[in-house]
Amino acid sequence: MKSIITPAKEINNRISATQKQMNSSGIEALFIVQRIDLFYFSGTAQNGYLYIPASGDPLLMIKKYLPRAKKESFIKNIISIDSVKDIPKMIIDFYGRMPVVFGFELDVMPVNDFEFFKKVLNAKECRDSSNLIHSIRMIKSEWEIEQIEKATVLTSKIFKYIEKELRPGLTEIEFAGMYETYSRTLGHQARLRARNYLSEFYNWHILSGKSGGTLGLLDSPASGEGTSPSFPVGGGRKKINKNEPIMIDIGFVLDGYHVDETRMFAIGSMPSKALKTCEASIEIHNSIIEKAAPGVPIGDIYQHAVDKAKSLGYEVPFLGPPGYKVTFVGHGIGLELVEPPILARNREETLKPGMVFALEPKFVFKNEFSAGVESMFMVTETGSKILSRVPVKVFIKK
Amino acid sequence: MKSIITPAKEINNRISATQKQMNSSGIEALFIVQRIDLFYFSGTAQNGYLYIPASGDPLLMIKKYLPRAKKESFIKNIISIDSVKDIPKMIIDFYGRMPVVFGFELDVMPVNDFEFFKKVLNAKECRDSSNLIHSIRMIKSEWEIEQIEKATVLTSKIFKYIEKELRPGLTEIEFAGMYETYSRTLGHQARLRARNYLSEFYNWHILSGKSGGTLGLLDSPASGEGTSPSFPVGGGRKKINKNEPIMIDIGFVLDGYHVDETRMFAIGSMPSKALKTCEASIEIHNSIIEKAAPGVPIGDIYQHAVDKAKSLGYEVPFLGPPGYKVTFVGHGIGLELVEPPILARNREETLKPGMVFALEPKFVFKNEFSAGVESMFMVTETGSKILSRVPVKVFIKK
Repeated sequence: MKSIITPAKEINNRISATQKQMNSSGIEALFIVQRIDLFYFSGTAQNGYLYIPASGDPLLMIKKYLPRAKKESFIKNIISIDSVKDIPKMIIDFYGRMPVVFGFELDVMPVNDFEFFKKVLNAKECRDSSNLIHSIRMIKSEWEIEQIEKATVLTSKIFKYIEKELRPGLTEIEFAGMYETYSRTLGHQARLRARNYLSEFYNWHILSGKSGGTLGLLDSPASGEGTSPSFPVGGGRKKINKNEPIMIDIGFVLDGYHVDETRMFAIGSMPSKALKTCEASIEIHNSIIEKAAPGVPIGDIYQHAVDKAKSLGYEVPFLGPPGYKVTFVGHGIGLELVEPPILARNREETLKPGMVFALEPKFVFKNEFSAGVESMFMVTETGSKILSRVPVKVFIKK
Repeated sequence: MKSIITPAKEINNRISATQKQMNSSGIEALFIVQRIDLFYFSGTAQNGYLYIPASGDPLLMIKKYLPRAKKESFIKNIISIDSVKDIPKMIIDFYGRMPVVFGFELDVMPVNDFEFFKKVLNAKECRDSSNLIHSIRMIKSEWEIEQIEKATVLTSKIFKYIEKELRPGLTEIEFAGMYETYSRTLGHQARLRARNYLSEFYNWHILSGKSGGTLGLLDSPASGEGTSPSFPVGGGRKKINKNEPIMIDIGFVLDGYHVDETRMFAIGSMPSKALKTCEASIEIHNSIIEKAAPGVPIGDIYQHAVDKAKSLGYEVPFLGPPGYKVTFVGHGIGLELVEPPILARNREETLKPGMVFALEPKFVFKNEFSAGVESMFMVTETGSKILSRVPVKVFIKK
């Protein structure tokens, strides 16, 4: 298993698309610090800072560890720095002057860090460039789609493993450990990436029976019991039983690219109320895939899902029980588990070719169960395409 | 296995110690958002905001999910809010007026979030209260020490499992999956908590043979190979071999409290260079435990470790190879994996009873191996006490 290096062409395209936007918005320099933005624009996630001027070559300044950064990144100018305080001198050496208008990742950069950088860089005007960065990242290139498709081939194997190994008596969190271990043999990087500092992200969102009806803090239809009040989300210490609906929502990461997929399982059988709900989820899922196409407003996708649930008689439990519904039916995904755009209510922006989503029309019957599927799809030039390989069905194990 | 609820007495003590400091520093209200601070001060990690006035009862405002927050928290006033925009009205209802001087967690709060809260709360003066919060959190109560000691009993079982199950041919990351799965059967909450948004935190820092000599981005003696350029730290896809030094650095969390411990293993035997280095690490470790006591400046602990390494003839590989040394020999630990204070160079603040540390005097021979131990200890009224139960030795498996 060989790690993938981000090709030079990818890096160059990303930088030049960004510079185009910088020029039209008057940002003279982008100062990239966050790990995944840095990886996206440079190909390396080593500890450092990427300076992107509005025109010309970027400058990658690495604190630790230069030899790996040089091996991984096609950025032309990669230099070593001991301290952030060296940066202004480096910028002047390379570009002749310090810019006045800086862009920062203000959606994630803590206030104290920002104040420090502002002072060191003597930045006169600082703008939030997170939307700019997301607008570039949200359109996946052909190469990126290829990476995601390599990953979905592997997740279909994980669901096969899950079907084979699922058995009564295992706790949710223990069984999740088993399929996570297996995932690692396939190349899973093991840690998911989430952008928001309040995000609870993990790979053991397995909700069996009543766990699926347990509400909690997540901005997700069901939260699960979790393992304690300090980590009150996801799979918990409940044992998996026969004849109950089991929702298994996996996260998998291959060479940085995330897959987020959910399938329903049962051992023996599933109560017909749950089974019918799964079927409704699949119908909504398929109907959204048919509807999704360039130019369709994102809010329409959400509304279409809600209308469809209503027409099927499933309005009440759709996207959570009354009073606790989420207002989205899917989310962008890529180098982070949740990326803009979110397939949310009232959003006017439109679908564009190259956007990739995890689509999750799920249902929650409070204190009873969760049911639903989640697949990865992309927007193509003419419509949409499912990237998931795992069959969109309910897995009943004898 | 029953989840622990933080006792009322704990919550009250934490709040009143905080209010004392707020009064002396002129902060009228603390606005707590970050998940673990919220959990520390309220007992619940549900989605919400904790308002701590300089005197009187705090107010816990929960967005989602109120019933769980009420079950978990001994805060007297817990109310439901739909939106952050409701908060000013709630504050005025409860306290009669809006404060002028607010404290925020500016070490973690992103700039965009801060600007939003500042506006909604109409905060005239905002101060960084992260040091205040850390100064309270860094002194663990007897109850907290009890929780940590319950956890170290369990981690000693994990090391037994590791000794039993370690075998050649498994990849590092796969073996880590195995002991993580086992950890979950003991109550491990599965996700580690780290405060800094750039932290790479995970539970598979297993570095066998050459992996231990692989440098990278971490502010840690060795980084390991990781699984790809996008997650280039920790265990990787290298297979574990016979007769090589294997460093296993585990993270374990029980009811919120973290344990961070490292032991060295080998299958068959370990080259004598590595074995002698392990012995040096153990000698430094024991010597620091002897030296640590209330009133000792933290910088002296670091310097003592460096001097001891020098006297043993191990100055060169201590805390990383030349040019890449870290400048600390351990770190505070509790509800987060890394907490202040750090046992770092030149720190003048002194050790205080109730501080808990993960002590890790480690060595790296670049491109060869890592060696070292890591234990948990606390500062007592008169000296220090090891909290780890796993023997401080090298584990050689036949």
